[in-house]
Amino acid sequence: MSPKITTELLRQLRQVMKNPRYVQEPVQAYIVPSGDAHQSEYIAPCDCRRAFISGFDGSAGTAIVTEQHAAMWTDGRYFLQAAQQMDTNWTLMKMGLKDTPTQEDWLVSVLPEGSKVGVDPFIIPADQWKRMSKALRSAGHDLVPVKENLINAIWTDCPQRPCKPLITLDLSYTGVSWRDKIVALRSKMAERKVMWFVVTALDEVAWLFNLRGSDVEYNPVFFAYAVIGMNTIRLFIDGDRIMDPAVREHLQLDSTLEPEFKIQVMPYGSILSELQAVGAGLSPKEKVWLSDKASYALTEAVPKAYRYLTPYTPICIAKAVKNAAETEGMRRAHIKDAVALCELFNWLEKEVPKGTVTEIVAADKAEEFRSQQKDFVELSFATISSTGPNGAIIHYKPVPVTNRTLSVNEIYLLDSGAQYKDGTTDVTRTMHFGTPSAYEKECFTYVLKGHIAVSAAIFPNGTKGHLLDSFARSALWDCGLDYLHGTGHGVGSFLNVHEGPCGISYKTFADEPLEAGMIVSDEPGYYEDGSFGIRIENVVLVIPAETKYNFKNRGSLTFEPLTLVPIQTKMIDVNLLTEKECNWVNQYHQKCREVVGAELERQGRHEALQWLLRETEPLARVQ
Amino acid sequence: MSPKITTELLRQLRQVMKNPRYVQEPVQAYIVPSGDAHQSEYIAPCDCRRAFISGFDGSAGTAIVTEQHAAMWTDGRYFLQAAQQMDTNWTLMKMGLKDTPTQEDWLVSVLPEGSKVGVDPFIIPADQWKRMSKALRSAGHDLVPVKENLINAIWTDCPQRPCKPLITLDLSYTGVSWRDKIVALRSKMAERKVMWFVVTALDEVAWLFNLRGSDVEYNPVFFAYAVIGMNTIRLFIDGDRIMDPAVREHLQLDSTLEPEFKIQVMPYGSILSELQAVGAGLSPKEKVWLSDKASYALTEAVPKAYRYLTPYTPICIAKAVKNAAETEGMRRAHIKDAVALCELFNWLEKEVPKGTVTEIVAADKAEEFRSQQKDFVELSFATISSTGPNGAIIHYKPVPVTNRTLSVNEIYLLDSGAQYKDGTTDVTRTMHFGTPSAYEKECFTYVLKGHIAVSAAIFPNGTKGHLLDSFARSALWDCGLDYLHGTGHGVGSFLNVHEGPCGISYKTFADEPLEAGMIVSDEPGYYEDGSFGIRIENVVLVIPAETKYNFKNRGSLTFEPLTLVPIQTKMIDVNLLTEKECNWVNQYHQKCREVVGAELERQGRHEALQWLLRETEPLARVQ
Repeated sequence: MSPKITTELLRQLRQVMKNPRYVQEPVQAYIVPSGDAHQSEYIAPCDCRRAFISGFDGSAGTAIVTEQHAAMWTDGRYFLQAAQQMDTNWTLMKMGLKDTPTQEDWLVSVLPEGSKVGVDPFIIPADQWKRMSKALRSAGHDLVPVKENLINAIWTDCPQRPCKPLITLDLSYTGVSWRDKIVALRSKMAERKVMWFVVTALDEVAWLFNLRGSDVEYNPVFFAYAVIGMNTIRLFIDGDRIMDPAVREHLQLDSTLEPEFKIQVMPYGSILSELQAVGAGLSPKEKVWLSDKASYALTEAVPKAYRYLTPYTPICIAKAVKNAAETEGMRRAHIKDAVALCELFNWLEKEVPKGTVTEIVAADKAEEFRSQQKDFVELSFATISSTGPNGAIIHYKPVPVTNRTLSVNEIYLLDSGAQYKDGTTDVTRTMHFGTPSAYEKECFTYVLKGHIAVSAAIFPNGTKGHLLDSFARSALWDCGLDYLHGTGHGVGSFLNVHEGPCGISYKTFADEPLEAGMIVSDEPGYYEDGSFGIRIENVVLVIPAETKYNFKNRGSLTFEPLTLVPIQTKMIDVNLLTEKECNWVNQYHQKCREVVGAELERQGRHEALQWLLRETEPLARVQ
Repeated sequence: MSPKITTELLRQLRQVMKNPRYVQEPVQAYIVPSGDAHQSEYIAPCDCRRAFISGFDGSAGTAIVTEQHAAMWTDGRYFLQAAQQMDTNWTLMKMGLKDTPTQEDWLVSVLPEGSKVGVDPFIIPADQWKRMSKALRSAGHDLVPVKENLINAIWTDCPQRPCKPLITLDLSYTGVSWRDKIVALRSKMAERKVMWFVVTALDEVAWLFNLRGSDVEYNPVFFAYAVIGMNTIRLFIDGDRIMDPAVREHLQLDSTLEPEFKIQVMPYGSILSELQAVGAGLSPKEKVWLSDKASYALTEAVPKAYRYLTPYTPICIAKAVKNAAETEGMRRAHIKDAVALCELFNWLEKEVPKGTVTEIVAADKAEEFRSQQKDFVELSFATISSTGPNGAIIHYKPVPVTNRTLSVNEIYLLDSGAQYKDGTTDVTRTMHFGTPSAYEKECFTYVLKGHIAVSAAIFPNGTKGHLLDSFARSALWDCGLDYLHGTGHGVGSFLNVHEGPCGISYKTFADEPLEAGMIVSDEPGYYEDGSFGIRIENVVLVIPAETKYNFKNRGSLTFEPLTLVPIQTKMIDVNLLTEKECNWVNQYHQKCREVVGAELERQGRHEALQWLLRETEPLARVQ
């Protein structure tokens, strides 16, 4: 990997930073964040501005360029990669290390008095603007919005913003029509006494209109905004795609409708001026609801007195609770996904001993098997296919230079998932194709105990997911082991594989309470640097639980695994399991046999079925 | 309980609200919070202003008086009491109910446009001021500081602020001299680049100077502030008590000292002007460190650019980690406390069947036995002595009208503790003096399992206490039971029985990580409204743990119970315990026998010793 030469680019950027064509007043520093205008997890090539200016293309990083300096903040996952991809014009700021200054502190230390720091107001979220602006102001500087993106100004071959065809989802997939979703949203708006709601997150737009897209990788979303009033619906979207007859029919664009359900389609780029017009026309008590992660530009379009900001929008919360159609779709998707993985693991068992299967080959094979399943759309994230020491790199993605060959001597960790038209999957299994050591089995069994502790937990209605995080760690903690990531994240229904507002992590406190119908992952792990990684991940559905005393009618919840892929019993030290845990594994495997077995049979995949039957033999505890 | 007639008082208050002698401009509303100028948990009679103006004397409540209205906000514990103690001039605002407006919303709904809302800037903490001021300003009103307290202006027979003698603590109790504490504090100040630290919490002043007082009930503190500079020490305290030769000697007031250790004693009331003088003399980069719970008045005395506010002060954090002398003192105090409780429970066992022991008699008897122990000072909080349905009222305190007689048919819950010169105790035991029902035993056993799950938990260094809270609930949750309070709080060393910055609760997220030497309570419970309450509480010390893999040298922690009082085995359903839990109980009781038994023997308390031996017979599980 040779670094990108950025001398000329930086010279050009520094020129536009003082060019009155682009800036009202010269800016002494310019911030280039990672994100797009929607704070998306996966971004389109045209939004990879930080990678363009610096060469560093990891998923997280913020560049700041001043007249003299260029600096890049990123976290521990990317120290090495960033150092390799950037030339000597750049200073790497290693976040999380004690001596690394914050962006604000660094700016204050290098800027001349009374400087202007520019940023694209469409890219920076309002809450981040506020924090940074305050810090700079207290040091005598100003954060200023630069309307035209200065990277775009010098990026002559910047790719077009993607504008791929839309997928319409009918009621059999969504359970609720977009009309009924609008009705429910308006009732939430009425409860909070707001007149307008601005939809800024791409998955929220997609969910609201029962549409999907493919403008970015992995997340089936499309570039759009929406502004919902009590009597109007405005959808901001570009391209011919809205001329597709199926889309027009789905959105009833050519039908005679009550005015409050008539969708006005407007250009994507007109959101700001339209929202400013809305803002200007407000009368007292007419509030506008926005996510506090919405961009500074859109937030500022609404006068402060009329803004109603919340960390989670009503769509985010409604989207998290899956209805019967979505739940059934997720079940179907997970059965198909399990079929693909049974095929894969059966294949790996035969091929790995031959020494020809690399991490990339295995990942490709997983995709191949998944793509054979009905309604497969794409992967839901970049496959983590890692063996031996690579397994200890939590966010590992195999690339040619790191690509390792699977063997009978090392643990193999596969964290992968797919988008099917009926649901999104995300599953991790850790396998050994030879004979695992006692220590590897011991660690695996602690991770399994943690996985079961969460999966089988019973807790009162209204409990937040972060309160369950320690259950996943208790068995590891007892022996002085731990893992440095959260235990679970929300999962969308043929939508983003990572979604809010719920999850299971020691890191958050502001998660929304779990409720029946929410779907999260349960994925404790253990990582031994330089040796191996272990993770056991199921996607689980929150369901009502039966308890003896039922919390005085408050009701209680537990989880039902949607993922139905065998957990390798070879890796389990049965003597470390309690009777209850042993029963859990056996019942889980029994269900895999019944449900996935039937589907393998139906698809005529007899060899994979035999593999499944072998892998789901009941465990027996030695008394 | 008949209500206090407040018509005339409210008339007078409304008069001073527009009297230029007291207010620069008339205020249309006046807020009377519960607290004192130090945000103390227990307040002196002279600070009970909200009780004076309203009649309601519960521990939590905020009164707001406007020209037309008088309203009181309090929580569920006090709905009944507040309704009984207040006359019809007052509207009760039931906090936690859905339709109850916040103070801000209510003010906005009743005030004429452009109103001024007054509050004593010494009583309201800065963080609360900020929140309320912002809400009022956005509705066109102003929160204004009223320097003279308007309740004091009409409270003609207001008691004097207490000014009781001080207790000096030598090194055998504190382990560290006040001089060394100042040195450590200054080093923390240097780390954060602050020049001044303002000590506002009473227990922080007491801890810093190794002094104790008795100005308020239960907390052995005295009214004072301190301002510590890098070269100066100012102690703001009133009364002759500083003339006590022992105190002068302890503080070395008459010795020749290096100037940076010379304590300047100043009047309590001069803190504001002194701090303003400090504030006025600051040069750039000279920051002043304050708690964000410090009063608005003191916070405002420091110009905003020079303020350094943190939720926890360096004293709060240092105070929480007990040194060897403090830990040993706490151990001694808990042994004495156990002796007193063995005497009490032995006495109760004999007396309860006679039907003459009421909750108040039992509480008094507990105090009597405690007061016989060496270095006993006072109780550490109001004893919760409750039987039958009273046990389900979590913050119950027996008063004549509720006083119930203990019997062999009801569960008895005693939550009590004391201040000894060597330590502070807080213990809850739940007993049955007849034959408990199977259901009572079942619930008790779940609570015990939760207690053990926390007490025996092993967790990595750096873990925050709130991550352990769910361990205490898991056994209850499994059967559909729960309790609606946190699991533990920090405990001072001959100081406040409730102290920050650590604890074990689902409610907080901002607690500091647990570290060896911290002391917290472990007190899960279960409450059946109208029937009984169960709680099992030990004070526990955080200690290093030995684990197989030791978190890659990050180290691990667990708890050692300091409380050594038998847990009634009659209440335990042994078959619900795991082998590990059963061993925990037996080892705990073995330690009670050894340690407390020896002290009972030494004190010649033979009957109580016999009781202890009976109560600590090992449990045997039926296999």
